[in-house]
Amino acid sequence: MANPTAAIIVIGDEILSGRTKDRNIGWLAEQLGSQGIMLREARVIPDIREVIIETVQLLSAAHDLVFTSGGIGPTHDDHPEAEARLIAHYEGTDIEFNAARQKMADIPEGAALIDNPLSAAPGYILGNVHVFAGVPSILQAMFEGLRDQLPGGVAMTRLTVQCAIGEGTIATIMEAVQTAHEGVSIGSYPWFKPGQFGTAAVVSGLDPHITMAAAEALAAGVRDLGAAAEIMPLGEGGGV
Amino acid sequence: MANPTAAIIVIGDEILSGRTKDRNIGWLAEQLGSQGIMLREARVIPDIREVIIETVQLLSAAHDLVFTSGGIGPTHDDHPEAEARLIAHYEGTDIEFNAARQKMADIPEGAALIDNPLSAAPGYILGNVHVFAGVPSILQAMFEGLRDQLPGGVAMTRLTVQCAIGEGTIATIMEAVQTAHEGVSIGSYPWFKPGQFGTAAVVSGLDPHITMAAAEALAAGVRDLGAAAEIMPLGEGGGV
Repeated sequence: MANPTAAIIVIGDEILSGRTKDRNIGWLAEQLGSQGIMLREARVIPDIREVIIETVQLLSAAHDLVFTSGGIGPTHDDHPEAEARLIAHYEGTDIEFNAARQKMADIPEGAALIDNPLSAAPGYILGNVHVFAGVPSILQAMFEGLRDQLPGGVAMTRLTVQCAIGEGTIATIMEAVQTAHEGVSIGSYPWFKPGQFGTAAVVSGLDPHITMAAAEALAAGVRDLGAAAEIMPLGEGGGV
Repeated sequence: MANPTAAIIVIGDEILSGRTKDRNIGWLAEQLGSQGIMLREARVIPDIREVIIETVQLLSAAHDLVFTSGGIGPTHDDHPEAEARLIAHYEGTDIEFNAARQKMADIPEGAALIDNPLSAAPGYILGNVHVFAGVPSILQAMFEGLRDQLPGGVAMTRLTVQCAIGEGTIATIMEAVQTAHEGVSIGSYPWFKPGQFGTAAVVSGLDPHITMAAAEALAAGVRDLGAAAEIMPLGEGGGV
């Protein structure tokens, strides 16, 4: 069975204006990858109702899962359970549960709520669209609570072949190795430090054996050129 | 005259896999904003030829300017000047200018080159599309060299009204102030610290006088509720 695919939609003028730096795409990308969910695209769009609707509809049809971040605070656009949770939350404070705060319970009918352990206003799931808060700590807490319910996939095997040689010198080897190993893709990331340079080649594939064989073939090819090459799990290795 | 609009396209499997965290969208968003160029959307897309072509064509038609990041290293898809620059660059080293490195000169006919002061492989401009490297330091150097050639616009005036009151309490005031001041938009960003909370309301508009009047109206409304409010340039102010 093919791994599920996903798209991320970040809703927020504050990201497009440069005022706030997005941290949700990178964090979610990592989590999805480790679950075997293939993130196919991410979009940052403005707080314009029509653009939000159009983008959600388009990506929801194109991918198995959609995750949105932003757009569920009190200043935006009644779900009885959401309202009940908010009332209970504000009862414990001296903050009035006024009309603007009631808007946080504006959740489409038929939606399932996503727990917000940090500040009560819940996210929700409608069809394959998962609506999260924009604040990274809240988004992360929401995702953690939801993780086990997400359709899983085979996690990609990813290996780094750390090569003490320039990217341009091994481009043809990488291409040949990729062609010879079905389902494997190789990305290459040149790096430079004072007096040193090299290439981290990331070999990825769903089949761990074929992926390892590809990494070994690449390392052998690099060593044939007289340069050092070392295979390691993704994320390790200096210089990168 | 309306300010020019722009879109950013980040090309890279390594961003979608979570391996690398994108830093180009945030940096470019800030630069474009300070030039008066309105960033309307940003997309992160995979290294798939058809997706790249389709996305570039779509956004190039929809916006005045498009900026892409990634996809111009030696492992990707002859521009005589680009080739000459690369030959000159490699002549000073003991690195061979081989077929893979020659690919870095694969630049469409009719394109104008963008200087790369860091590693010679140039970016290029074709129509309204500006093709930058993906490495942040190189992208930034390329953008700096190009900045004066970009069509300018009226830089947005952005003011922060720092309010010692919750977002939900002033949502209706913000809405009323926004409606009463043409061309002004107000974004609100609640913040929390131990024992304290408040809202930073960011008031933005192209007309500095109307924008300031809106900020003053908002601050007055907050003070009417008995809470402190202070107007300051965007980016200043504690707690945000």
